[in-house]
Amino acid sequence: MSALLESYVAGHWFRAEDEGEAVLDATTGEEVARISSRGVDLRAMVEHARTTGGPAVRRMTFHERAGLLKALAKHLGQLKDEFYALSLRTGATQRDSMIDIDGGIGTVFSYASKGTRELPNDTIVLDGAVEGLGRGGTFVGQHVYTSRPGVAVQINAFNFPVWGMLEKLAPAFLAGLPSIVKPASQTAYLTEAVVRRIIESEILPEGSLQLLCGSAGTLLDELGEQDSVAFTGSAHTAEILRNHPSVLHRGVRLGVEADSLNCSILGPDVTTDAPEFDLFVKGVVAEMTVKAGQKCTAIRRAIVPEAMADPVIEAISARLAKVVVGNPADESVRMGALASVGQREEVRKAIEALRNSADIVYGDPERVDVVGADAERGAFISPVLLRAHPGASEPHDVEPFGPVSTVLTYASTDEAIALAARGKGSLVASVVTHDPEVARTVTLGLAPWHGRILVLDRHDAAEAATAGGHGSPLPVLVHGGPGRAGGGEELGGIRGVLHHLQRTAVQASPDMLTAITGRWTTGSQRSVDDVHPFRKSLRDLRIGDSIVSEPRPVTLADIDRFAELTGDTFYAHTDPEAAAANPLFGGIVAHGYLVVSLAAGLFVDPDPGPVLANFGVDNLRFLTPVKADDTIRVTLTVKQITPRSSADYGEVRWDAVVTNQDDAPVATYDVLTLVAKTWDDQGHA
Amino acid sequence: MSALLESYVAGHWFRAEDEGEAVLDATTGEEVARISSRGVDLRAMVEHARTTGGPAVRRMTFHERAGLLKALAKHLGQLKDEFYALSLRTGATQRDSMIDIDGGIGTVFSYASKGTRELPNDTIVLDGAVEGLGRGGTFVGQHVYTSRPGVAVQINAFNFPVWGMLEKLAPAFLAGLPSIVKPASQTAYLTEAVVRRIIESEILPEGSLQLLCGSAGTLLDELGEQDSVAFTGSAHTAEILRNHPSVLHRGVRLGVEADSLNCSILGPDVTTDAPEFDLFVKGVVAEMTVKAGQKCTAIRRAIVPEAMADPVIEAISARLAKVVVGNPADESVRMGALASVGQREEVRKAIEALRNSADIVYGDPERVDVVGADAERGAFISPVLLRAHPGASEPHDVEPFGPVSTVLTYASTDEAIALAARGKGSLVASVVTHDPEVARTVTLGLAPWHGRILVLDRHDAAEAATAGGHGSPLPVLVHGGPGRAGGGEELGGIRGVLHHLQRTAVQASPDMLTAITGRWTTGSQRSVDDVHPFRKSLRDLRIGDSIVSEPRPVTLADIDRFAELTGDTFYAHTDPEAAAANPLFGGIVAHGYLVVSLAAGLFVDPDPGPVLANFGVDNLRFLTPVKADDTIRVTLTVKQITPRSSADYGEVRWDAVVTNQDDAPVATYDVLTLVAKTWDDQGHA
Repeated sequence: MSALLESYVAGHWFRAEDEGEAVLDATTGEEVARISSRGVDLRAMVEHARTTGGPAVRRMTFHERAGLLKALAKHLGQLKDEFYALSLRTGATQRDSMIDIDGGIGTVFSYASKGTRELPNDTIVLDGAVEGLGRGGTFVGQHVYTSRPGVAVQINAFNFPVWGMLEKLAPAFLAGLPSIVKPASQTAYLTEAVVRRIIESEILPEGSLQLLCGSAGTLLDELGEQDSVAFTGSAHTAEILRNHPSVLHRGVRLGVEADSLNCSILGPDVTTDAPEFDLFVKGVVAEMTVKAGQKCTAIRRAIVPEAMADPVIEAISARLAKVVVGNPADESVRMGALASVGQREEVRKAIEALRNSADIVYGDPERVDVVGADAERGAFISPVLLRAHPGASEPHDVEPFGPVSTVLTYASTDEAIALAARGKGSLVASVVTHDPEVARTVTLGLAPWHGRILVLDRHDAAEAATAGGHGSPLPVLVHGGPGRAGGGEELGGIRGVLHHLQRTAVQASPDMLTAITGRWTTGSQRSVDDVHPFRKSLRDLRIGDSIVSEPRPVTLADIDRFAELTGDTFYAHTDPEAAAANPLFGGIVAHGYLVVSLAAGLFVDPDPGPVLANFGVDNLRFLTPVKADDTIRVTLTVKQITPRSSADYGEVRWDAVVTNQDDAPVATYDVLTLVAKTWDDQGHA
Repeated sequence: MSALLESYVAGHWFRAEDEGEAVLDATTGEEVARISSRGVDLRAMVEHARTTGGPAVRRMTFHERAGLLKALAKHLGQLKDEFYALSLRTGATQRDSMIDIDGGIGTVFSYASKGTRELPNDTIVLDGAVEGLGRGGTFVGQHVYTSRPGVAVQINAFNFPVWGMLEKLAPAFLAGLPSIVKPASQTAYLTEAVVRRIIESEILPEGSLQLLCGSAGTLLDELGEQDSVAFTGSAHTAEILRNHPSVLHRGVRLGVEADSLNCSILGPDVTTDAPEFDLFVKGVVAEMTVKAGQKCTAIRRAIVPEAMADPVIEAISARLAKVVVGNPADESVRMGALASVGQREEVRKAIEALRNSADIVYGDPERVDVVGADAERGAFISPVLLRAHPGASEPHDVEPFGPVSTVLTYASTDEAIALAARGKGSLVASVVTHDPEVARTVTLGLAPWHGRILVLDRHDAAEAATAGGHGSPLPVLVHGGPGRAGGGEELGGIRGVLHHLQRTAVQASPDMLTAITGRWTTGSQRSVDDVHPFRKSLRDLRIGDSIVSEPRPVTLADIDRFAELTGDTFYAHTDPEAAAANPLFGGIVAHGYLVVSLAAGLFVDPDPGPVLANFGVDNLRFLTPVKADDTIRVTLTVKQITPRSSADYGEVRWDAVVTNQDDAPVATYDVLTLVAKTWDDQGHA
């Protein structure tokens, strides 16, 4: 008897109290492992996540969490061979395993990178601008995202045992949540191996990742208002989860990624000799055969102009004929086995249902030639292409979770969009066209029904293929779809992190808002002392540190000299008569760039110091024209301080306000600088 | 018998087929109206919204929709007297009516304004930055929000018959959705009156607003993947909706705003003589008595330091003793009736439940003195204050939907946060403190459990009161809460619009992305012709129109002159030795402001023309230092064109890239200009 998979529960590997059920090799039918969750203390698991894992993660800033994700991704990258070997047993070819294993590790890297670049080095995220809530400026609002003191339960599908776990774990971890991972039994041995290596590495804090092998039992009963469940799998199971008392009554947040009848639409502009024709055909074939079609993103419906049905079917069939099916360990094999013979029965049933309104035009669900394996003991099946009858309904409703696709035809782009919509909400659609008008019309028509749309033509095809094409969710883009696809949204870079956080509107005085958010708010107190803030290192600078400059007159001579030096001789700066006719100026005005340049002259401290460089300016707005002989001054205030973990400097964002002699604001902007963490006046950082 | 309220169904006012049920005046018990939905063709209603209302709204841009909302708000503002008169019959005082009627109209104004200022003059919204998906730049991603071809069903509570309708209608309309409004029967006569005036005005396109008076019957059965239901009401009804097959199986999106045990926390720093003590007491009393406590945002739990319980109870009781209860038409009355005698029974039951673990310290639920009305025939009840026993649980679970609040005590701020969390998710909390540390700790501790937090002290109190204080959701801030509060989110400015839209990741070549989004994407083709783009009016400018400037050397003399003119003598521009020691520059570099100023000199067309002004710069980043004798050039490209409906010019956003002699990017930014819609070369816009 093979080994019983263990669960990682409350800091220990736990062996179930019974012998469990057998999990079989997809190719050979041999037993790979046994699985059971009998005896797992589910309450202790949730409690451990809440009291040990969660607090440990939330003590860290987003940058610190991102740093651990980066270390984790590097570590797993070194162990890939072990995972590839196990992955073979799931029926996956080398290419399939790459999508799962390298794709999963790449997703962790992506979150490490996004977390560092797009989240603050803090534990809260500010959302949007400060909203004024009163005319006097004493009452303002700011939306903030905070981490929930809860648990993220992740129930994964069998098809991507590595990617499926990591793409949910990485954003949850970044969001400050401990995860409890429950893999699908069929391929849990691979997930278990990866989790074991993660736990051994001690990279993630104890309690931030636990593993439940086997049935989830009453796990959901333990959850409450601050907890969430992310589920990938069948619509049937999704409905059971939606009906769970914890979801109905106790506010557990449920995210679902379920059935999806994805389509690819061939544009009406594409002729058989156009490169887009081949791209369409290749796309359909790839989505049918990669992972033996066991992808929730696979193309189930190939929607083509009526006249193109025959050439498309011919071309797809010709390519399918070259697909070698068999033992994924054999190098000639292009398509491996389904995950189990049970799955094969499901696919055969789905094909039977499809045949109510479609004919098989390629392949035989009962027969397939295989290389290096036994076609019956292994879960092998032939790719099957169908052609829908006019008005067919099954192709829009039945999801064959295998190497199966159906060709449907349309008479107009409106009809193509309507056909796609009959899928009732899908994860992804492809639009294969070289006509920008078609691309715009079809993409915007499909958009309300889809979480992702791939627009494919000769220009992006090569890089699109490298990125995985139609079937590959990317960490930086949202994954999920409306309606039948479950209505959930995962990934999408930081979006996937924010989904885990609670958004709260905070109403306060500017001073209190500054204290709460750690970002200086307009209207808050400023601190002006004898030391120019450009002489303070990152360590010494404080939010609110300010300099109010001396006033400076702006003369006509300044404007003339600036025009001459820069070559910017726009009439509003040089031609009194024409400037007077401008409806906004009514006379000669200073260049906006002159105003901010003079402002820099007023606030810069010239000597070498901790401020190393001005690397940018944000949200510059010119509010009032500066006329000749106006007098300006600038107030510069430390707004936000972001130390970089990996450098001896950090970023300081300064609030800049230029005013005129009437104290009217002339220009407002943020100045972005790099500032050394430490500095002594001998000039050493 | 009073009049039967009608429903507005598929373009006609429909009178139910039976006599309906009576709706009674809250103060007098007289019949105000009758209500029934018997015979309403619910399918026709949904169909009408889908085929007439939805398409009509979606043909308009966001700015056009915002324009109609502004007209609507103005129109309703002129009819307020009629609504105020009807509002009296709901038991509402003048002040209560103001919150409902003026609050509702103000929300529509706010959406009109936000829609114009923060949404594009287009039918789609771009979300976030373009994501590079391949190294070569030929494959990029962009998230877009599009309108769903669905219906927004809005099921409102009885307490705010005007605001409740308008706060859901405005964001849905802006999002391109037709609405079906179902008011609570008890106060539907007021909603009906407002809808009647809206329909008569013909401001909104036919089909974009329908009204269902009476039971919702099988309305939800008619809904599918693209439809949504926004519900405000009891947790019990919310559970029925969550269990509805359309929600469970057909992907109908359900937003819930349900029970909420909101709290106000008195900071440990506040002494009885501090202004914050009075603010706390006033806040509790206001939330108990406004709308007779029938607000989902009212303070149900007053959480105070142990030592403060007695003084707080004393002060609240003293204020409550001055509250005149009675006929809201009487000017001396501070608190009117509950919505119905049935509601009064509910409140009395809730108080009985609370008394399991709390004692009444003010008021008698069975007895109240009233002015100008009959205390039994009208739905009057006394304000009731309770004091919780140590460890009480009912105050955290029982929501008395009336003028009732319970005082609880804490020993530490951690305990205060834990007590608040026992509400299991609430709409709003107040934190009353003058200590920034307390404000930060308590606010961030409460945040995961709340949709909104009001931090109140002497500085924001006056403006906070004007804005409505603790109990008033504001259109620019999110309204909703996690867990028991329903997990929904409404309002929040544009956030409330985006919730109605579908987010989709579009993957394409830069050219295709430009065609689809209408915004120029880096890597797309540029169009350079003989006419300088500054000589083209808004009508003639096209996305992608570009100018590639001549090269211009940047000399040490330029840098010196610029430093002298502007006074910006930062060492990196003036001191060769010190500049050489800077780790980022390694020698004299041009000022960033000089670079962008020279770039303007290179791209500006000096003569009067359609470009009226440069009003700002966004996302300026200095990527490579410009050293003396480097040569720069700038490429300026039309990125986005936004005509303003209300002016004879629009906004043009230009993509600017400054490169050096090695074609390395030196600076990238967006230049924002105002451009006349038309222009002739005689200089007339």
